Amino acid sequence: MKARLNLQEYANGIAKGDRVVLAKAITLVESTLPVDRALADQLIEKILPRTGNSIRIGITGVPGVGKSTFIEAFGKHIIETHKKKLAILTVDPSSPLTKGSILGDKTRMEELSRNMMAFVRPSSSGEAVGGITHRTREAIHLCEAAGFEIIIVETVGVGQSEVAVKKSVDFFLLLMLAGAGDELQGIKKGIMEMADVVAITKADGENKNKANEARSEYQHALHLFRPDVSGWSPKVLTCSALLQEGMDAIWNTIVELQQLLQNQGLLEYRRNQQQVEWMHECFDQLLKQQFEQSASLQKKNKHLENEVLNRRTTPQQAAQSMLSDFIELLRTTKS
Amino acid sequence: MKARLNLQEYANGIAKGDRVVLAKAITLVESTLPVDRALADQLIEKILPRTGNSIRIGITGVPGVGKSTFIEAFGKHIIETHKKKLAILTVDPSSPLTKGSILGDKTRMEELSRNMMAFVRPSSSGEAVGGITHRTREAIHLCEAAGFEIIIVETVGVGQSEVAVKKSVDFFLLLMLAGAGDELQGIKKGIMEMADVVAITKADGENKNKANEARSEYQHALHLFRPDVSGWSPKVLTCSALLQEGMDAIWNTIVELQQLLQNQGLLEYRRNQQQVEWMHECFDQLLKQQFEQSASLQKKNKHLENEVLNRRTTPQQAAQSMLSDFIELLRTTKS
Repeated sequence: MKARLNLQEYANGIAKGDRVVLAKAITLVESTLPVDRALADQLIEKILPRTGNSIRIGITGVPGVGKSTFIEAFGKHIIETHKKKLAILTVDPSSPLTKGSILGDKTRMEELSRNMMAFVRPSSSGEAVGGITHRTREAIHLCEAAGFEIIIVETVGVGQSEVAVKKSVDFFLLLMLAGAGDELQGIKKGIMEMADVVAITKADGENKNKANEARSEYQHALHLFRPDVSGWSPKVLTCSALLQEGMDAIWNTIVELQQLLQNQGLLEYRRNQQQVEWMHECFDQLLKQQFEQSASLQKKNKHLENEVLNRRTTPQQAAQSMLSDFIELLRTTKS
Repeated sequence: MKARLNLQEYANGIAKGDRVVLAKAITLVESTLPVDRALADQLIEKILPRTGNSIRIGITGVPGVGKSTFIEAFGKHIIETHKKKLAILTVDPSSPLTKGSILGDKTRMEELSRNMMAFVRPSSSGEAVGGITHRTREAIHLCEAAGFEIIIVETVGVGQSEVAVKKSVDFFLLLMLAGAGDELQGIKKGIMEMADVVAITKADGENKNKANEARSEYQHALHLFRPDVSGWSPKVLTCSALLQEGMDAIWNTIVELQQLLQNQGLLEYRRNQQQVEWMHECFDQLLKQQFEQSASLQKKNKHLENEVLNRRTTPQQAAQSMLSDFIELLRTTKS
């Protein structure tokens, strides 16, 4: 198959659930070339009516927690027991910290990769955090249009990408290790509190008791926080990918939460909010691009930042001066 | 004294530490009238060289935790034991929830209000959350220019205003009640994790044991989170405003944290970041104003949101269309 398809070829392939075309389409939306971008926009518009019918689950946890092993086991459970088509997207903003794991991606989730009910897509390396929300949302839409009923978005759990992913999914599942020493796990505060469900992994063999202890400890700590608007308070569970244990409980908890949200109209509300937010974010990004494409504005910005830091001008006045220049720029350039 | 002063009168009064002029200057920066705004900008610029020399402390906690009683006791300790001039700013975004407390403000912190070493400023009612960061920062600068060495910014602890205040202060002190039932306290997750220091209030009489229990419970829960970049992990303390106990320990902890940050250059770094962020926020706000002042853009925005929700267009395309209109508007209006 040729590397670049046309709009109709992309759309037809996706409608048929063709995984090779789906993979190419995700590559297209990840591209930053203007020509690709234009085609990607058309494609997303074309597939729009076929989207929205999946359960979108974010999964995170620090390296070592066993994310791919868990997803492999959890995915198997979803496919075999619940007969659902499953897509797995990995988000991994490039950083010195995570460079190592990208190479490893090829051999990750081997079983799922070969399963006809599953689609596994490692992240594109070199992506900036800023673009993650947008690209992830587009990839989710493409997978939905290709008929996938469960979408798992996996992130690395060390930084800002979780916040971006949170804006694109219905629920967030946080994987934790028992007794690894909390600081070692390096979970940022903000990630802990995004979790709808926490699963303590590797609850098997000698580790089982520790896992149960960690479970009640985390359950207690999370109880200190106020439940969200739906009345849901994060649940903590244990599981073992090795023994294929606990997967049904996690799945049932997710389904329970989904039902709760759906009955209150909160699932639709949340997605509508995400959709409108997405539009506003695109707008902000486009505006920012106008700003960033101008070398003279960038120079002015640096200069004003220095003026502010050296107390030669106030933030308010610096901003005013920046705005005048920006408007002047827009006046004199073509859109 | 007349209601409205000129620039020189404001600046001179503030330089002399005149509290009446300081109060008027804060009213000025809180005003949204364009003519006041212009004068406020000039004033902030004029006093700029005299700013930056205080310790800025945010204090929050839900209604009932005893915020004003605590601040009264804590303030007295700062003034009497450490001979520092203290300014207290209250931030209270108007909402049905908090409307009641505004009336009560007049009789709050009675003792401090009469103390010549203290300046107490209740919030202006009716302020939108969006403007809080900006106004709070300006008020902090005015107090610093008037010679106040410790600035306490008090917020109501029920919503977004804490995030705004966090961006304006060096540290955050969270007040909690022992055994009030965590849900009753209604502390949002995000507020808990902003805290550098947590103080359990009303640790006296029958309450003392419960307060100590709560202290170790919260200390343990906070320990689950990763310390911030300075290596500081939130400290939990108990105190009693009634018995004037624990105030020195809280003060010492704040000084300890300040030293730690200062030695690592993090205090200056954090303030520089805040200053640059302030400028960018002003810029975004000015840009947003341009947008919001246009009825036709507002209408278009509503229309596009609906199109997006009904899947008739993609967020990306809606944003593109919005941008074209916005640029057109800026081109044809005067800046």
